[in-house]
Amino acid sequence: MQSLQLAHRLENKNVLLVGAGEVAVTRMPKLLPTGCKLTIVSPSFHRKIRESFPGDIPGEQGGIAVNADWDSHSQQTFRIVNDTYRPEHLSLEPHWHIVLVCISDHSASRAIHAQVQEHFGPQQLINVADVPPLCNFYFGANCTLAHDRLQVLVSSNGLSPRFAALVRDEIAQALAEKEELLEQAIEKLGDLRARIRTIACNSDDVAFRMSWIKVVTDAFGLQQCHRLDVDRLAHLFAQMYAEHSTATAAPPAVKLADFPQSDDLVALYSAE
Amino acid sequence: MQSLQLAHRLENKNVLLVGAGEVAVTRMPKLLPTGCKLTIVSPSFHRKIRESFPGDIPGEQGGIAVNADWDSHSQQTFRIVNDTYRPEHLSLEPHWHIVLVCISDHSASRAIHAQVQEHFGPQQLINVADVPPLCNFYFGANCTLAHDRLQVLVSSNGLSPRFAALVRDEIAQALAEKEELLEQAIEKLGDLRARIRTIACNSDDVAFRMSWIKVVTDAFGLQQCHRLDVDRLAHLFAQMYAEHSTATAAPPAVKLADFPQSDDLVALYSAE
Repeated sequence: MQSLQLAHRLENKNVLLVGAGEVAVTRMPKLLPTGCKLTIVSPSFHRKIRESFPGDIPGEQGGIAVNADWDSHSQQTFRIVNDTYRPEHLSLEPHWHIVLVCISDHSASRAIHAQVQEHFGPQQLINVADVPPLCNFYFGANCTLAHDRLQVLVSSNGLSPRFAALVRDEIAQALAEKEELLEQAIEKLGDLRARIRTIACNSDDVAFRMSWIKVVTDAFGLQQCHRLDVDRLAHLFAQMYAEHSTATAAPPAVKLADFPQSDDLVALYSAE
Repeated sequence: MQSLQLAHRLENKNVLLVGAGEVAVTRMPKLLPTGCKLTIVSPSFHRKIRESFPGDIPGEQGGIAVNADWDSHSQQTFRIVNDTYRPEHLSLEPHWHIVLVCISDHSASRAIHAQVQEHFGPQQLINVADVPPLCNFYFGANCTLAHDRLQVLVSSNGLSPRFAALVRDEIAQALAEKEELLEQAIEKLGDLRARIRTIACNSDDVAFRMSWIKVVTDAFGLQQCHRLDVDRLAHLFAQMYAEHSTATAAPPAVKLADFPQSDDLVALYSAE
């Protein structure tokens, strides 16, 4: 059975992590760069977890410390609860976008899973480390490319996480030499996309906009997108948008053949 | 800001799709192979959406048809609602794992988003096509490798979806010639993983098991894992598990140096 791979936007969203040992440490580089508001509940803390929290971890059992300087760009833990997990901890926030359980006691894990499902419903995202039946999602093996502008996930749907990691390494290595080129391409395409959104800003312009940027991106291809001339392409877009629009209807989707001098598109609209 | 890429297990989970046009069609190949229970609400249906539902679509507006033969392997739509979306449709199921809105009317989209958030809370997974601020996840560009046993997601965090698709194509092409090799590797590693789980089945065996399979997978590497001899490696695991266990404690994690004839691991434990 295939899974549905999604990229979640977690900025300012509450995430609960139960456990602060070796496995919890592996979650941190995935979580902190998302800007999520991370609460960690554990009676003891791995050094690398401590380092993610700038203040003192409360000395007494049951103590809760909040990171007063936290913001979504700080790449820090938001709240530390120095305690063995108890059901009351689920109520520290009204909602958790994601709940992660990273403790080695499987029967305690199962109890937490049951409480989470009862409290928040079966659709609550939850991952219980090393107990696949209690996970409604897998992490898979991930990496970033193009200086963090692209993210890649490789998953084997639980068949072989370590092999998925080897495939991830192969992909990262294959694309490593294109890092600069990919980064420039994404920056330019992001700029171009923002520009044409301001030119064709009606909701029924979507088909025209999406088809236009698709033709341009595909024409330049992976190897040439870093060369595109954003100003002149935005100008071309404005021209074509005006030509294809009518007084009463939004412009329809375009094809490569609708472009002027289509064969030369890349040559004509590359920056010097 | 980076996103958190996850692989969701949707078998038998309710998914709501509002809209059944061109954009909705692009969601179908992502959703149907997951075995999710898909409900589609729309006053009209693209041919490809009709084809995903084996029965007749109810003729009258407001009609609801359920696929009586649906199961999670049928790769079909579970329920069709021939109606313009109304808030009551949210109550067709007590929970939706994911809500997808694929209609071209942005103000209607915004209203649906608000109703979904009010009804199910801010943690409800929702994606409103072409309105990034109303999405708490992106789809990104995905593909399968190794005859569907591996899944890959490339996302640009909204910067340039089409360029992410080009990178996805590059990855798929680069690994296409290894399809057979990857498939065999994953099958063998999946078998091996299942075997060692039955040998070391205590919850505190996790560190030993995970480190052991990591050493073996890494030693064989992407190019050789398809050659590993599952029977003899399972036997080696049983031996090492017995040697490293003590009467009172679970075995600790292993390194390559703990393996017998570590230099020859691949040569010794490859199938003929």
